[in-house]
Amino acid sequence: MQTPQRKGILTVVSGFSGSGKGTVMKLLLSAHPEYGLSISVTTRAPRQGEEDGREYFFRTKEYFEQMIAQDKLLEYAQYVENYYGTPREYVQRQLDEGRDVILEIEMQGARQVKQRFPEAVLVFITPPSIEELEKRLRGRGTETEEVVRGRLAQASKEAEAMEEYDYILPNEDGQAEKCAEDLHRIICSEHYKTDRCKDRIENFRQA
Amino acid sequence: MQTPQRKGILTVVSGFSGSGKGTVMKLLLSAHPEYGLSISVTTRAPRQGEEDGREYFFRTKEYFEQMIAQDKLLEYAQYVENYYGTPREYVQRQLDEGRDVILEIEMQGARQVKQRFPEAVLVFITPPSIEELEKRLRGRGTETEEVVRGRLAQASKEAEAMEEYDYILPNEDGQAEKCAEDLHRIICSEHYKTDRCKDRIENFRQA
Repeated sequence: MQTPQRKGILTVVSGFSGSGKGTVMKLLLSAHPEYGLSISVTTRAPRQGEEDGREYFFRTKEYFEQMIAQDKLLEYAQYVENYYGTPREYVQRQLDEGRDVILEIEMQGARQVKQRFPEAVLVFITPPSIEELEKRLRGRGTETEEVVRGRLAQASKEAEAMEEYDYILPNEDGQAEKCAEDLHRIICSEHYKTDRCKDRIENFRQA
Repeated sequence: MQTPQRKGILTVVSGFSGSGKGTVMKLLLSAHPEYGLSISVTTRAPRQGEEDGREYFFRTKEYFEQMIAQDKLLEYAQYVENYYGTPREYVQRQLDEGRDVILEIEMQGARQVKQRFPEAVLVFITPPSIEELEKRLRGRGTETEEVVRGRLAQASKEAEAMEEYDYILPNEDGQAEKCAEDLHRIICSEHYKTDRCKDRIENFRQA
């Protein structure tokens, strides 16, 4: 028996507003272009220059609701009359080919993915501390006191759900590249988790 | 509230005979001398040139048995009339100082550590496959057919306990340096596990 080809891992990345997760994602994908992404399905109309299968998969409301009914979405949400979701098959195909896939989605979506795909790895990117988050929000100099307080209250509320994530990854000030590399290391290490190595163990048992 | 200093992680490394784990450990410690090790306690007499507190802590049988009774050992075993064990306090002190500690011990000892110290990370180093292990054992050219078969049977038996480990880390042929770096990445990533970040989560909740 040969050790089979390794399967890809699905990672979901979320984070507080002000965590710098967008920058971290860009740095990660630029350093490691081998990661797969998803393309969302939406019911909103394409804007000028948008192409089906590039920015989004554009589908009708009826089609989208059928996808929901047939459990063909890893997660979805509705904003202002329109649906947005992550197509399970598109992601699954990449995983089957051995490619690691990363989704950047907010908490509600992350929770849905974990329910439908328990082997997904959930990573929550944070500023190193609430004090640092406050400093960053004020440092922008563009937010009113009310907005800053609102953001902090939101973070405190979201912190209630942080324990649903597998990893809490701090993005230290000015160290987004280190944070991106830490994220890469987490995904690499997850491949060696015993639960993901059942075939290898089986191979040794059959000696 | 400041985010507290990170605590060290205790990692236990085991592996099949023929996995190359000794080489991997040497490479890891040479590339990352910041890792802490333990010094075993033993009841055997010091040999010429051995120093108490360097090769071993040399103690009497009575002293050692008192350590067992007082649960002062993370694991211990008896070989040929003599006891050997890992002193809990010596390890704990390094962890408290924020230093990651690695123990290289066999399965029975690893199991004892996990019972007494559930937050320990257990890593099992293997050749990539049983076929590769067989090739390595025969490749030495020094083992009789009987010894090779014995080693393979032993591996197959040990494979039963592989699922007690947290990670199964393959050491590919000629890639011990990569394996050492993978081990380092696993330990780095473990620091971000949600269970080890309760203080950070608490910090955000108190906003």
